[in-house]
Amino acid sequence: MNPVITLLTDFGTDDSYVGVMKGVMLGICPEARLVDITHAIPPQDVAAAMRVVPTYLPYFPVHTVHLVVVDPGVGSMRKPIACNTPMGYLVGPDNGVFSLALQQAQRIDATAVQAVALNEPRFWLPRVSTTFHGRDLFAPVSAYLAAGVPFERVGAPVDTLVTLTAPEPLWKSRTHLIGEVVAVDHFGNCISNITNAHLRKLGARQALKVVVNERQLAIVNAYADVAPGEPLAIVGSDNYLEVSIREGSACTELSLTRGARLQVLLTQP
Amino acid sequence: MNPVITLLTDFGTDDSYVGVMKGVMLGICPEARLVDITHAIPPQDVAAAMRVVPTYLPYFPVHTVHLVVVDPGVGSMRKPIACNTPMGYLVGPDNGVFSLALQQAQRIDATAVQAVALNEPRFWLPRVSTTFHGRDLFAPVSAYLAAGVPFERVGAPVDTLVTLTAPEPLWKSRTHLIGEVVAVDHFGNCISNITNAHLRKLGARQALKVVVNERQLAIVNAYADVAPGEPLAIVGSDNYLEVSIREGSACTELSLTRGARLQVLLTQP
Amino acid sequence: MNPVITLLTDFGTDDSYVGVMKGVMLGICPEARLVDITHAIPPQDVAAAMRVVPTYLPYFPVHTVHLVVVDPGVGSMRKPIACNTPMGYLVGPDNGVFSLALQQAQRIDATAVQAVALNEPRFWLPRVSTTFHGRDLFAPVSAYLAAGVPFERVGAPVDTLVTLTAPEPLWKSRTHLIGEVVAVDHFGNCISNITNAHLRKLGARQALKVVVNERQLAIVNAYADVAPGEPLAIVGSDNYLEVSIREGSACTELSLTRGARLQVLLTQP
Repeated sequence: MNPVITLLTDFGTDDSYVGVMKGVMLGICPEARLVDITHAIPPQDVAAAMRVVPTYLPYFPVHTVHLVVVDPGVGSMRKPIACNTPMGYLVGPDNGVFSLALQQAQRIDATAVQAVALNEPRFWLPRVSTTFHGRDLFAPVSAYLAAGVPFERVGAPVDTLVTLTAPEPLWKSRTHLIGEVVAVDHFGNCISNITNAHLRKLGARQALKVVVNERQLAIVNAYADVAPGEPLAIVGSDNYLEVSIREGSACTELSLTRGARLQVLLTQP
Repeated sequence: MNPVITLLTDFGTDDSYVGVMKGVMLGICPEARLVDITHAIPPQDVAAAMRVVPTYLPYFPVHTVHLVVVDPGVGSMRKPIACNTPMGYLVGPDNGVFSLALQQAQRIDATAVQAVALNEPRFWLPRVSTTFHGRDLFAPVSAYLAAGVPFERVGAPVDTLVTLTAPEPLWKSRTHLIGEVVAVDHFGNCISNITNAHLRKLGARQALKVVVNERQLAIVNAYADVAPGEPLAIVGSDNYLEVSIREGSACTELSLTRGARLQVLLTQP
Repeated sequence: MNPVITLLTDFGTDDSYVGVMKGVMLGICPEARLVDITHAIPPQDVAAAMRVVPTYLPYFPVHTVHLVVVDPGVGSMRKPIACNTPMGYLVGPDNGVFSLALQQAQRIDATAVQAVALNEPRFWLPRVSTTFHGRDLFAPVSAYLAAGVPFERVGAPVDTLVTLTAPEPLWKSRTHLIGEVVAVDHFGNCISNITNAHLRKLGARQALKVVVNERQLAIVNAYADVAPGEPLAIVGSDNYLEVSIREGSACTELSLTRGARLQVLLTQP
């Protein structure tokens, strides 16, 4: 048995905070495999973390524990929670960070999604600070779940969770969809909130044009379909429409950042 | 058996140096769990590493091997050492980097702290360079300890180790303590050398004022006790007094950096 | 059995891409030990990755799977490959990234080096994107190899691979060698393409002078042979001649970057 625990935080990797959480978890569940997703979520940016969670859940074994600590409300009345889903356990603060992941889980099997408010101190560190629930509460609960403690034992059922919404693209007409850049990755690829499903509704891929900053781009199948240095639109590996530069940064070279408008038009209906 | 080895270095994560040490360790102790604390200690900053070590030791299983490589004296006469403590094994150069951790260990059980100078080449790589003892000497010794080689075998007892001291806060009077910022974390929280114990000596928490850069701050219990964007003083998760901005950076917004003065006054004695 | 898989990419660590590959691998080979080498290869810089690969291979257990994803040609006709070598398996795109590692492997045992083009979709994810073969193809094949699938099964033999060459130093005369800086590490050490073997051919170490930016440097045995802040030349831990500043950055302080010329002269023949 090799239980997996993933970690997503806004802690950075310059301090010992992440290591401390791992020490706590290995003390409780020595056989756990700990996988860093990223610790570079911008400080307190719950919305950014919310968007990242669904990108990795489907690729992990089903019993994985997914620990998320982006927690501006630590020490306040916000609830610590855990969720049981067909894509594994989610553990973190009740601030909306799991909203998109829970939608995704409910589409798979709504009856299989449960949430509890963590209220069992025997699964926490003996002393709980007001500033680092990642260490004192979320890490130990994650490790106990990984070690096989039944989900029902770590907390009491809750019906309503804090929910955040992500910006949805707007149908200007049946042939005109307006979306926006919701994330920029390490390569400078600009990821939009327009999915492959949206594009299919608009029409045949070859008949679509993507418009960003006065520029028209075709939607290609692979980066190699354009010359190095050329811009392109493509459906990325998470099924969202992206604007990229082959072997370059669309963010820098097209001045596209989070929030920038991105339109798709059906040109030959 | 899942022995844990932690790594703290100033190597950064852009080169293969850390990976190479892990390869060496997994060759010797394939079942070891390797946990990165951070590799972002400023190059050669032994004092910064010394301050970080005690922050994670208490959270790891007791038999953990803690490898620390911040080693400006590599290739000189400085001794390579290992220490056996109630908080696990410490392995690294004899340059003072373990000074605070050893004080902490001695407070737990002074009789249980031993040190050896590493002088057994059979626990090293066959060829030892003059520039990378992390790979050639400290990593293999750490892995052999994790694999169960008795501590006494890896070196010869030493009585005196190089010791560094950390700046201590100064009692200006019984109601006035002067400390300093000793570290700034990823969030811009400014961590001082004033502990919770110092504060208790001064007086009741509600009667204390923290003064930094002409500003007076109350010591609150949680970030959420002030409005977002507001400065605050708080006893952080390692029991040191910190100055923070809720959902902001005290370092940037209050121009507070390492070495800045921080005073605590008892206002209603 | 604790199979090891290393990861070298240009993905950075701010997105979930690396985590996603790890999730895929742990789903296939739950007992795998995953070791990050670095994810900071400059985007699409195949030559930089090629130079890094041989620095870590020799330090890992022989059956390690070394996954390398620096893949500007993803989605084009470039072949996905795996190689079986005396230093473990290599998995990645056929773009030359393994050229130096394969030379190194062939020097150990040329008859033991084989390559296959990955053409067995049963060892891939069910759906293969055009933009992320790291996740869909290279990660699963790596995990199956780590899990014990025989090398011959994952692809069909190929005779010719894309080969890149690294800049070789130039013999100006028997006493004068011209090389260049091929990499700068985290400490600002400037690593050249001149090996210890080249230096031996030139003459006795004490009779050699290194010339960079109008400056003459002796080749020392350890950083500690010069005063802090002083420049030096040294044979680094990978057997390449390096220019360093003791407790400083040669890159910054001597204005030396990748491509800078570095000469070695025999002064007392």
